[in-house]
Amino acid sequence: MFKKRENITEIEEGSLLSPKFDNDGLIPVVTICTKTKDVLMHGYMNVEALKRTIETKEAHYWSRSRKQIWHKGKISGFVQKVLELRIDDDQDSIWLTVDIGNGSSCHVGYRSCFYRSVPLGKIDNARKIEMKFEEKEKSFDPKKTYKGQPNPTKI
Amino acid sequence: MFKKRENITEIEEGSLLSPKFDNDGLIPVVTICTKTKDVLMHGYMNVEALKRTIETKEAHYWSRSRKQIWHKGKISGFVQKVLELRIDDDQDSIWLTVDIGNGSSCHVGYRSCFYRSVPLGKIDNARKIEMKFEEKEKSFDPKKTYKGQPNPTKI
Repeated sequence: MFKKRENITEIEEGSLLSPKFDNDGLIPVVTICTKTKDVLMHGYMNVEALKRTIETKEAHYWSRSRKQIWHKGKISGFVQKVLELRIDDDQDSIWLTVDIGNGSSCHVGYRSCFYRSVPLGKIDNARKIEMKFEEKEKSFDPKKTYKGQPNPTKI
Repeated sequence: MFKKRENITEIEEGSLLSPKFDNDGLIPVVTICTKTKDVLMHGYMNVEALKRTIETKEAHYWSRSRKQIWHKGKISGFVQKVLELRIDDDQDSIWLTVDIGNGSSCHVGYRSCFYRSVPLGKIDNARKIEMKFEEKEKSFDPKKTYKGQPNPTKI
């Protein structure tokens, strides 16, 4: 659908969109909140999700757990309005800047999926690295919002 | 090496680091500039790269093109000092906040790997989507900096 990848100079220095999808047909996506500049989530798109995101200006991903196109916010109401879509040097990852208003992005209930930080420095016991919660409170109740939906997290 | 992933509540709500590596033994990493809040790059770590990053407070990745641990900046001098390392809800992606001073991150010569944006709206011809260069000038000369190194970009 998009321009065929033919040579490295075109891919890196050219202006035509020519994304690379991996062996599963996916490209990774970093989603940043325009207001806080936090990383809200890390997801994946297939060709169709990328096309729909560009055309509708609302973030669409490929749900690896449900194996279907995922219009983010369709169930929760937390739609992501896309303000900017960038692609990297070798065109194999995407950076979305989105507006979620006062909404959230994380199915656990936090605003960002990245609500825990890892302490830096010498590791004494790697099986017991205690993280810090950077978001103190959940911003919505996932049990209510996602009633009846399976949890996407897999062991 | 890290805590074994045993149940979903622990993974999502617990405080012990228990990262998930994919079938290739990798976890995706989003690297943000502490100064500009731009996404500098999207990379991958294996267990050893994650351990070294935590312990040395300098970003280490797994180079998929060179198939080896990649201490970012070892060749170019553009070391990334890690200020914060976060992990997401299901612990399968990492957000690094780094200080690169006045350095760069992109092997093409730009500060961020994400130097091009994709226009949003109806797609007339997907093979001809013209992107915009958001960084006007390269911040270093990759031919000099990476003299003799192979280009990591693959078609």
